[in-house]
Amino acid sequence: VVLGAGRVGALVAADLAEDSGLDVTAVDRTGSALEPLAAAGLTVRQADCGDPREVALAIEDAAVVVGAVPGFLGYRVAEAVLHAGRPLVDISFLPEDPMRLDGLARKAGVPAVVDCGVAPGLSNWIVGHAAARLGGLEEVEILVGGLPFRRSWPYEYRSVFSPSDVIEEYVRPCRMRSAGRDVVVPALSGVEPVEIEEVGTLEAFCTDGLRTLLHTIDAPTMVEKTLRYPGHADRMRMLRETGFFDEEPVVTDRASVAPREVTEALLRRAWTPDPDEEEFTVLRVRLRGRDGTSEVSTLFDRTDRERGTTSMARTTGFPAAIVARMVADGSWSVPGVSPPEKLGADAALTDRLLAELARRGVRIRTTSPARA
Amino acid sequence: VVLGAGRVGALVAADLAEDSGLDVTAVDRTGSALEPLAAAGLTVRQADCGDPREVALAIEDAAVVVGAVPGFLGYRVAEAVLHAGRPLVDISFLPEDPMRLDGLARKAGVPAVVDCGVAPGLSNWIVGHAAARLGGLEEVEILVGGLPFRRSWPYEYRSVFSPSDVIEEYVRPCRMRSAGRDVVVPALSGVEPVEIEEVGTLEAFCTDGLRTLLHTIDAPTMVEKTLRYPGHADRMRMLRETGFFDEEPVVTDRASVAPREVTEALLRRAWTPDPDEEEFTVLRVRLRGRDGTSEVSTLFDRTDRERGTTSMARTTGFPAAIVARMVADGSWSVPGVSPPEKLGADAALTDRLLAELARRGVRIRTTSPARA
Repeated sequence: VVLGAGRVGALVAADLAEDSGLDVTAVDRTGSALEPLAAAGLTVRQADCGDPREVALAIEDAAVVVGAVPGFLGYRVAEAVLHAGRPLVDISFLPEDPMRLDGLARKAGVPAVVDCGVAPGLSNWIVGHAAARLGGLEEVEILVGGLPFRRSWPYEYRSVFSPSDVIEEYVRPCRMRSAGRDVVVPALSGVEPVEIEEVGTLEAFCTDGLRTLLHTIDAPTMVEKTLRYPGHADRMRMLRETGFFDEEPVVTDRASVAPREVTEALLRRAWTPDPDEEEFTVLRVRLRGRDGTSEVSTLFDRTDRERGTTSMARTTGFPAAIVARMVADGSWSVPGVSPPEKLGADAALTDRLLAELARRGVRIRTTSPARA
Repeated sequence: VVLGAGRVGALVAADLAEDSGLDVTAVDRTGSALEPLAAAGLTVRQADCGDPREVALAIEDAAVVVGAVPGFLGYRVAEAVLHAGRPLVDISFLPEDPMRLDGLARKAGVPAVVDCGVAPGLSNWIVGHAAARLGGLEEVEILVGGLPFRRSWPYEYRSVFSPSDVIEEYVRPCRMRSAGRDVVVPALSGVEPVEIEEVGTLEAFCTDGLRTLLHTIDAPTMVEKTLRYPGHADRMRMLRETGFFDEEPVVTDRASVAPREVTEALLRRAWTPDPDEEEFTVLRVRLRGRDGTSEVSTLFDRTDRERGTTSMARTTGFPAAIVARMVADGSWSVPGVSPPEKLGADAALTDRLLAELARRGVRIRTTSPARA
């Protein structure tokens, strides 16, 4: 059962349905989201994922449940699934700490794989795999970004997500690890240029994307940064520092309103992609192991024009669909909450993930440029 | 009688009061604005300049009235003064076309000198003077800006005016003349670097500042641009194009509000100068006469720390105070509305203006760098 039939959930459901051994049901509150899936022959069910009782009814007897609802609903949905004792694979990127669900999952005796997208997701997997292979890690740097190929002034950015989620990345303090110490730096800080072969120079800046890795990986240096076209961070910082992201209301002669509400409405307009605008997703993970080995893993994926899927949906949805199969066939059955780095420690599962991604055109190249 | 005792009005009143031959009354709605003037021995009168009847009472028998009220009140105040048959010198920069008051002033048989600040103001005077001396003009370029010495990211700008007036400059289409034709270009367009000896490289961009010059001067090429530190125009254009200056309300879940209202509140905070922050005003007028002569007139004025006056107040207020004397003593008595370029055509008045400005430390240097 796939809960949520947005861009990502629909892709997950369609991917799973191609497997003749699986009986897939897609669930969403809005009929229009389900229509194309029903037309493609999938079983669909209209239900409100925000209502735990409706969720419980929809997932009865499911071998695995994929959570693909908006972030703000994520925790509630995950809780309902684990309460019902069903295995979970989640890509809702719930803002809460997913480890808080660990007790519930253990009690139910079911696996719950969380943060199962691209980053968090594939990034965690790559780090977990390297930590196991290289006998621990010294340094981790994760860079990730989804961008349009066409650079349009002033933001050179498009988003199919709500601007609220993007702004959240630009305001939330970033937890990192530096020389063995946990540090917190402001979002949008640490701006530096990064060369990406396929598109040229991008800029990287700190965001709060390490999440579970801060607890599961003991590398003394760990950094996560978001990639945008150069200049984006400065513009966003200008808006933030002027107060345009403030939730504290501004009182004018005629209204009292949180600037962030107005900003979100304006940026939604500015950031909506044009029809057929092509985009790409880039993920680069640089690692240095305790044994001195350096590695760089890179993913570069672009809009699939033939199938009409965005790289954002592909790189987020395929990992979830592949892990859902691992859970469904019992290849991953450890009870409790597991972030992807836990699965990454298993070489066989990693081989399977990479092969399945490659079969779908998503390739992760890993090179070892130098030995320290 | 000086109507309005804000930063500029107070300086005009104090300047006029130094003249033992003049009996000066400063008028303002707020007592706190009048207090320092009363303490300095000036006659003050608390009255609401937004009420034409109160204005009429305040200006009875005045030899000359200086209008120094906020722009939105300017037209109403000017009308009240001319209705009462009193001569007017105005620096309110009323958004309306001041020539609409010409009939009223002629009927009253009194002079009304409008736009009597720095630019519009001294800029017009310089152009009018050159047009008379050089037998007409081929080209006029006016650059003007008021800026803080300290450049603080991101705007590198401060304003004691309402942000609303500044935003207005950034949204109003700019009327220019190019190769003999009237053209309209967007504000913030035509960005180019400009070297200013005292402060380095600034940027100039189009704003709608030619006003009366478009009708009084028949030069085939006339341009007005505002000066800021480089990068300011791009930031303002970003805000404008995203919709942050829109007056059309944005409807959010909780409110319906014009983005411009919120933006003005936030920019007021961002643009308020720190106490004792020093600023400068720069004006540069480049001219080419029909006779082939090129001339550059430059004014550079800075905060007067000893007297505690800003260059903005000095360069705006002194021209008004000097012209008010010319009207009071009958040196300028032409009935009807006259912009400063009309007075500039008179060589004796020009000599007097420049000498009086210089006595107050405001110097306009005119050089003739080359002959075409």
